[in-house]
Amino acid sequence: MDVNIPEVVAEIRALFDCYEQALIDKDVEVLDATFWQSPHTIRYAIHENGYGFDEIHAHRVRRPPGPGIKLGQRRLVITTLGWDFATVNLEFDMRGRDMPGRQSQTWVRFPEIGWKVVSAHVSVTEASPAY
Amino acid sequence: MDVNIPEVVAEIRALFDCYEQALIDKDVEVLDATFWQSPHTIRYAIHENGYGFDEIHAHRVRRPPGPGIKLGQRRLVITTLGWDFATVNLEFDMRGRDMPGRQSQTWVRFPEIGWKVVSAHVSVTEASPAY
Repeated sequence: MDVNIPEVVAEIRALFDCYEQALIDKDVEVLDATFWQSPHTIRYAIHENGYGFDEIHAHRVRRPPGPGIKLGQRRLVITTLGWDFATVNLEFDMRGRDMPGRQSQTWVRFPEIGWKVVSAHVSVTEASPAY
Repeated sequence: MDVNIPEVVAEIRALFDCYEQALIDKDVEVLDATFWQSPHTIRYAIHENGYGFDEIHAHRVRRPPGPGIKLGQRRLVITTLGWDFATVNLEFDMRGRDMPGRQSQTWVRFPEIGWKVVSAHVSVTEASPAY
């Protein structure tokens, strides 16, 4: 399974950039179009867990407009496996926090509808271990 | 792309259960065997970010033995897409915390080495929104 085929990485990079801009703009149409419209889709956000597309959509709508929590990207890693599968992991500086945020996405290319996020997880790094 | 083919779900379920037991036992051999041995593998843990298999392995070794942070599974969702991709998302009760933990894994079946976790993210849900 080929890792990081340049065309595939470029596709995911463009979709990810578009998603990040939509978060800033609170463009719910783009946010919704990025995620798999399925009851199986999961998005763990910093303070809420969305199970299924409808819950995730409701969280998008409920969020107040504003600049969001991201101050800047600290480390972005896109990894693609073959032609139809990718992960995106971003560590970012957070407004009003010392510790970085982390954002993980799992992307799948579906035959009919193209690339969609099927699972996502956003959180804040804790300062101390929790063993 | 077929969702949740029963045989595939059963395979992932067995591997996940094995991984969870290895966390409790601090069985580094099993933990290592579960993850893709690659510089591309990423594991965001509650308080540390592991980039590449070697860093992830070092975090395993450094962790003190003990019962761990999980008191019990609150909600486990395994989603498989076709024969070679899967995600596992677990919400769990945490020792000494009011808010649940969340654990996300992205699994890929490689032709030679079989199923491996290529990306993982563990975090604690925050009590309040961080907009």
